[in-house]
Order: sequence, then C-alpha cells, then structure tokens
Amino acid sequence: MLFGKNFSDHMFLMNYDENKGWHDPRIIPYQTLSLAPSTMVFHYGQELFEGLKAYRTKNGEIQLFRPEKNIERMNNTSRRLCIPEIDPSDALQAIKEIVKTDSDWVPHEADHSLYIRPFIIATDPFIGVKPSSTYLFMIILSPVGSYYPEGINPVKIYVENEYVRAVKGGIGASKAGANYAASLKGQDKAKHLGYTQVLWLDGVERKYIDEVGTMNVFFVIDGVVKTPALEGSILPGVTRDSCIHILKSWGYKVEETRVALQEIIDASRNGKLNEAFGTGTAAVISPIGTLNNGGEEIIINNAEIGPIAKKLYDTITGIQYGEIKDEFGWTLTV
Amino acid sequence: MLFGKNFSDHMFLMNYDENKGWHDPRIIPYQTLSLAPSTMVFHYGQELFEGLKAYRTKNGEIQLFRPEKNIERMNNTSRRLCIPEIDPSDALQAIKEIVKTDSDWVPHEADHSLYIRPFIIATDPFIGVKPSSTYLFMIILSPVGSYYPEGINPVKIYVENEYVRAVKGGIGASKAGANYAASLKGQDKAKHLGYTQVLWLDGVERKYIDEVGTMNVFFVIDGVVKTPALEGSILPGVTRDSCIHILKSWGYKVEETRVALQEIIDASRNGKLNEAFGTGTAAVISPIGTLNNGGEEIIINNAEIGPIAKKLYDTITGIQYGEIKDEFGWTLTV
Repeated sequence: MLFGKNFSDHMFLMNYDENKGWHDPRIIPYQTLSLAPSTMVFHYGQELFEGLKAYRTKNGEIQLFRPEKNIERMNNTSRRLCIPEIDPSDALQAIKEIVKTDSDWVPHEADHSLYIRPFIIATDPFIGVKPSSTYLFMIILSPVGSYYPEGINPVKIYVENEYVRAVKGGIGASKAGANYAASLKGQDKAKHLGYTQVLWLDGVERKYIDEVGTMNVFFVIDGVVKTPALEGSILPGVTRDSCIHILKSWGYKVEETRVALQEIIDASRNGKLNEAFGTGTAAVISPIGTLNNGGEEIIINNAEIGPIAKKLYDTITGIQYGEIKDEFGWTLTV
Repeated sequence: MLFGKNFSDHMFLMNYDENKGWHDPRIIPYQTLSLAPSTMVFHYGQELFEGLKAYRTKNGEIQLFRPEKNIERMNNTSRRLCIPEIDPSDALQAIKEIVKTDSDWVPHEADHSLYIRPFIIATDPFIGVKPSSTYLFMIILSPVGSYYPEGINPVKIYVENEYVRAVKGGIGASKAGANYAASLKGQDKAKHLGYTQVLWLDGVERKYIDEVGTMNVFFVIDGVVKTPALEGSILPGVTRDSCIHILKSWGYKVEETRVALQEIIDASRNGKLNEAFGTGTAAVISPIGTLNNGGEEIIINNAEIGPIAKKLYDTITGIQYGEIKDEFGWTLTV
C-alpha cells in the first residue's frame, strides 16, 4: 500500500473568515476543491500541514498518538504564517470525528495505519502580498502500509554543503509547506548521488547538524544520546519528543544541544559513535548506516540497526498499537 | 482599481507530465480550477510565480517590458524548486497570446496597466514529499491602476531584527511562493508598528541589507549608488537590473556590493545619505523617507523623493508607456 496516494471516503472541512472566525465544521464525501486561479495559496505558499496516524489495536479499537502535540504545533505554525489559530479542542474533535466516520479505513494488518493529514490553505482570490483574510482547514485520510515491509534497513545519508533548508529567524521550526519546497533540491541531489536522505546543516555557520531529510536526528556517542536543540530552525517533532522522554525514562543521558558535524566525524574515527537515527511520524525510527561528508563515508554501527534505535522503535510502535502499556498517557482511543 | 482582485476574461494553461513534457497550451475562459485535496501544491508549496505588465502606449499599441527577463528568472526558480523548465520562446508566446486575446483589458488611462501573472503549481494528487511529476503553468491577467494616484509619497521602513526572509543556500533568489509565506510575519509586524515595509537583513550575520518588503533596494551615498549584490538570498529584480543599466548610462557609479546597515546609518549621520529607494514591478520606484532601526529613526532626504529616484521613475515608466525612446531595446510590442 503506497503512502499518500489513496484516500478515504470522507474529508473534514472548516472555513475561516474575518467576520465569523473559524466556522461551518463539516464532514463531506472526499471530493475535488474548486478554487479560483488567483487563490492565494497558489501564489504565496501560505499553507501548513500536520501529520499523525490512527492505529488499530489487537482488540479492534482505534488509537491516536499524542494528537494534542500536532495540534499545538499546527497553531505554532499558524502564528508564524499569520494564519488564525484553531481552538485545540475543536481541532481534536475534528480529527476524532473524521477518523470515526471512516473508521473502516483504519487497516487491520500489522504495522499498517491510517495517516491523518490536517492542513490549512489561504483562500482569498487576491494576488496582493499580504496574509489572506479567508482560509480552509481540511483533514484527509490515507491508509498506509508498513514502512519497513522487509525489516528495518539503515539508510545512507548525504551531508549537504550547498543548499540550506532553514535558518534561525526563518520558518524552519514551522510545519509550513514552504520548508518542504525549499528542501526538494537538496533531497533530489542526494538521491541522484545514491543516498536516501540529505543531512541538513545550519544556515549560519554550516557546521551544526539540523535535521535529516524530513526527520529529526539522534546520535549516540559513548553511551550519551545527543540531538540538535530546538533553536528556531528545527522542526519540533512529536517522535523526537517521545524518544527523549522514553530514553530518559530508561536512564539514558539525553542532551539537546548543538551537534557539530565534526563532533560526529571525530566520534566515528575514535570508535565512539555507537548509533545514529532519524525520527519521524512516517518511519518512527530510521537508523543511519552511512554518512557521506564531502566524499568521505562514515559507516555507523556496521550499517546495522543499533540496540537503542531498535528498542525505541519497538517501544513507540508497541505503545501506538496498544501492545505495550502506555505509561506516558500518550494514546487516545477514538 | 485595486490591484489583484479583478481578472480578465481568459487565462492561459499548459500541462506537464513526465511522458509528454510541457504540452497542450491553451487559452480558455477564466474559470475555477478543480483539484484534489491531496494535490501537492496545497501541502509542500512547490509553486512559483512571475509578475510583469502590459502597457498601453499613446498610439494605442500594447507593450511588454523585458518579458525575457521574467521568463529567464522563472526557469531559474524552476530549477531551484525541481520544476521542469519551459522553453523560453514558448513562454513568451504564451504571454503574448493571452495579452492579445484580452487586449481590451489593457487600460487606456494614464499610469494604468495590465498585470500579467504567470505561475506554476505542482499537481500530483500525492502527499509524499518529493518533486511532483505533473505541473500546471498558468497565466492570468489583472488590470491595475496607478500605484501613486496621489503622487509619489516616500514610505516608512522598519528594520527587522527578529525574522529572516532568506539565507544564502536557501531559495531567496527564487520567485518561489515559499519566500512570500516566510515574509508575511515580518511585514505584519512592521505594519502594526506603523511602518509601510520591512527592511530585511541577511540571515547569517544580520548586519547586511538584503531587500525592502518585496522590493530590491538602492542607496545613494555621496553621489555613489549602492545596491546589495546578488549573492544568493536576494531576488534578481527586473526593475533593479533596469535601474542599474540606466544609472550607468547616465554616468553614475553603481556598486553592487554588500551594504551594511551601519554604513547607511553612518552616512545618514554624516549627512552623506542622499537618497534611498526600493525597486519593483508594482511601484517601479518607491522612495524611502524614514528608516526605523531598533527605535532610532533616520529621515532620508527630508522624507521627500530624491532627484535620482524621480528621474528613474520617469524614465522607466516613460519607456514602458512608449513616451521615451527605448534606447535599451527593452520593450516588445504585442
């Protein structure tokens, strides 16, 4: 089942205008949108999205994983893009209602789920550069198969020295469509060079690690877990946050800090780079096996998944599918 | 006549797919687009636009101003956003044909024109993060009145220290919708503080001047004209380029260089800051009367339009409307 190509029978819509605020929440059959060519979203990229999943548990129930974190981030993104915020309880209700309506679309197969895509677009039919005065909030649903049908394979990462994804003061901490437009070229370059993902460096000094592809990134150096701090250019991932909580509960030292690329290279040379992995909603955990920095390849943990990555993957997916006790209170039954 | 709200009777469309390339160029009545909610442009901001104008000359002809520059920039933006390029002669023909079709929409009033908005959107109905495999190239037309119905009034500019528009290595030199999404917050902040536009500083050192609002910026210091060099974060404006050519033809020394904010402040204190102005397709020339840097206000040329700004405005609009001989070969009769 290819992610993102098939959609469920219904979708959620809610409109915004300056008089009524957010209004007219409704669930209708999945259908095309009719928009004027002058609609702002086509011209100035005033748009944002979120991504989360609904999981089928063994006893047939449907669970969400920390949806309030996605809603909080959606509103943070809205503020950065001059889009009006949505009441978090309204947003959560919308997610629950659309998933309930299309609950038959939540797959029963192991490791499958129903991807939930809330998004907001600017809808003024006006091509002056300013924040739109009208918006459309939508939620669409796409069933998704196992991310690792053949088991977890560590990925090959290319360190990008030319293109920059985001810079402090910009919109890199937001889930703005604009960030993804800006990331396509670097990602494309990595793919053409035979790498799975791009490793983004900071836009100011070009020596600190920001993200990997569309994921946050973690390194285990001499038993200590390090991940780039949220300093304004990095997306605050829900899986990132969950990993930090779980690792700390296991007694690991976790440092949210600036992580210099050179520190990773040095740790590798000294045999102290135990593991590296990306985190995100799609893959949950994506181990990094190879890192190419300007032609020099670093092999991490013999290009095999490490014990911490494996245990995090099993724990988070275990909680998501209701197979492991949710000690953190992260799941919500629909 | 409010810019960007009214559109002409027709629009130009052309599709791209991986088998046929760009194909099926057509002019149809202006109408809404039908797009699936999963269409990529709504999610990842893979979109670009251009802006130019058609001018009515005294003898009733219709002129374009350097359209090949817009087409060249559109293809540069396409490359940065992984969008397939369009043959420049096809793009020029499309612009000419749609303007011819709706030639009655080119206003006859002085200082009015027909704004031409070419744009490209990613149209795959797919929410995986990758370049789209299908696109839609469109051109819509909007009649626009005089930018200065009450004469040219110098604007008040706010120096933005918190938000960043673009950084070297990013997409700031592209006419990507994403750049405009990223710029809304700073612009909004300036407006709320009582300023017309925001002055953007570079994203790395935060001390060099990039742009003003959605315009390029020029300073006249002690008779020498300075404008920020095109180093990767600045849009290469057609009006900017035209100003440089004209100024040089008049014998001015024009320096495309890094312009430190401090240099402007110092020049103002020493009485050597003669003029400052923005340049862009919409306003042509927009004189800067006031610059607020962290609470300190600099008044430039007594907040009046300066002689160079005035002469540039008169010259460029004169060429555009066919009232001044086009020595540069910049106009193209449709």
